[in-house]
Amino acid sequence: MVVMPTESLTSWNDGAAKTAIVDFVGRVTRTNSADYVKPAERIAVFDNDGTLWAEQPMYFQLAFAIDRVRTLSPQHPEWKTTQPFKGVLEGDIAALTASGERGAEQLLAATHAGITTEEFDVIVRSWLATAKHPKLARPYTQLVYQPMLELLAYLRANDFKTFIVSGGGVEFIRTFAESAYGIPPEQVVGSSVATTYRLGGDGTPTLVKEAKIEFVDDGPGKPSGINRFIGRRPIFAFGNSDGDQQMLQWTAAGSGARFVALVRHTDVEREFAYDRNSHAGRLDKALDEAAARKWVVVDMQRDWLTVFPPPR
Amino acid sequence: MVVMPTESLTSWNDGAAKTAIVDFVGRVTRTNSADYVKPAERIAVFDNDGTLWAEQPMYFQLAFAIDRVRTLSPQHPEWKTTQPFKGVLEGDIAALTASGERGAEQLLAATHAGITTEEFDVIVRSWLATAKHPKLARPYTQLVYQPMLELLAYLRANDFKTFIVSGGGVEFIRTFAESAYGIPPEQVVGSSVATTYRLGGDGTPTLVKEAKIEFVDDGPGKPSGINRFIGRRPIFAFGNSDGDQQMLQWTAAGSGARFVALVRHTDVEREFAYDRNSHAGRLDKALDEAAARKWVVVDMQRDWLTVFPPPR
Repeated sequence: MVVMPTESLTSWNDGAAKTAIVDFVGRVTRTNSADYVKPAERIAVFDNDGTLWAEQPMYFQLAFAIDRVRTLSPQHPEWKTTQPFKGVLEGDIAALTASGERGAEQLLAATHAGITTEEFDVIVRSWLATAKHPKLARPYTQLVYQPMLELLAYLRANDFKTFIVSGGGVEFIRTFAESAYGIPPEQVVGSSVATTYRLGGDGTPTLVKEAKIEFVDDGPGKPSGINRFIGRRPIFAFGNSDGDQQMLQWTAAGSGARFVALVRHTDVEREFAYDRNSHAGRLDKALDEAAARKWVVVDMQRDWLTVFPPPR
Repeated sequence: MVVMPTESLTSWNDGAAKTAIVDFVGRVTRTNSADYVKPAERIAVFDNDGTLWAEQPMYFQLAFAIDRVRTLSPQHPEWKTTQPFKGVLEGDIAALTASGERGAEQLLAATHAGITTEEFDVIVRSWLATAKHPKLARPYTQLVYQPMLELLAYLRANDFKTFIVSGGGVEFIRTFAESAYGIPPEQVVGSSVATTYRLGGDGTPTLVKEAKIEFVDDGPGKPSGINRFIGRRPIFAFGNSDGDQQMLQWTAAGSGARFVALVRHTDVEREFAYDRNSHAGRLDKALDEAAARKWVVVDMQRDWLTVFPPPR
């Protein structure tokens, strides 16, 4: 196995982060290396929101849910006077936030349930094809990080199997993961609602999405999700927030060489700058642990020559 | 893509079942075929118990649980007088069966929970290395079906991705799926208990298996499991019992060419003969549906020249 030339990581500045990546991949892929890892065990996991694509000013899946409420609102006149829908329709994010867990469940039920998996797929694809980011004014699927696309390709060229492990909805992410990242549906781990199998009158089966959360793939749920879906411990993990802390711990604690890293959003000009006090993608405890354990911290402003791919 | 020579299916009799397999694979892999399917979408799913390995006189995972109770019994003197453990220790399967769902839960809790995922892995591997089948007198991992091993290899050589979709425990199956079938852990879908992430005093994380069923990947759960883990509809599905019926329906209902089949256990001499009245692997409704819909039914006695691989 020949390590792919590091020139493929063209959007990475020649700094400590890039050096750490290239060094690690070299160590686990050279057959004469003490740290050699068989291709089948080269599992790399990536958080999605804030790690592979942007997540400000709100998670893109939340933007989808809000747009979906607007689309459906003519059929629900009662939403004009009931939270969390009133807040959503009036653009009152404070009211939406104040509606708490019960509000989030109602929003989920109205926008992610009561339809078949195939209907949901069509709805999300249609939204992604037309919606644009409020500040960056580009389709959401173009707000993926160019250096991370190069990293995914670099790892795959070195026989790594790349997975997404996200707190976001698994079926939402699957609609774009293959075209945006080259990651097939079966390599996406995420949160999910229960589905119910139904046979129609003509014998045609469907899977209906229920308003019932089945699994939350966030925080301590990420190692459980990795165990459940992948069944092996990753050797390479990349996150950006406290929701990734346990995934990074779990990866780091395996035997042999491990690569564990965080993206730090420091670039208010090209993207966003936020960490310890952010609603979306709060990075606080994991940042302290990264410093204590010498995990790699990618400084977006310093380490990335380019943030987003050129507009298409 | 050149279709692998059908000579690789050497344990299959040259009958209708083999012809149907080879015909289907040819149709979906020839680029000039109207039924051509891209490699990424060549998803093949296999039930495990009774489809890839034997399942009589009881599911092998139940045999594991029974042996585990025996191993642990010196530490549990109360088991001598309480069901379902009393029945297990006395070999009284009728008493075990009579203990019902509550008994099954207690057996699961005693044998599959309260330990870490890594401890469970070691325990199962150790059991598989020493336990032998009561009638066939061979290690359980040698009771895999030679024709199905050839079929898995044939499909993979034709760029199919092969998955197990089993009602059995996902972590149980993963201990042997890679060495027995060439199916990696991330391509095993199964039933599971919840796991809890814990950080030890020294900062070492573990995942603890809880006595709480998280997902039952059987019957209508199989399409849900396929949707959750794989995220695409298979084009090829193989089962052997009513627990596979919905998986076969779900596969058959997709657009384009589909292959859907059942193994029928008709071979009392080389293996077992059972169908509509069996406790393990009951085949009743799915057999009727196979006849109505012209699904392929493999008759073990007629279609398989060899059942098990030669002893190692």
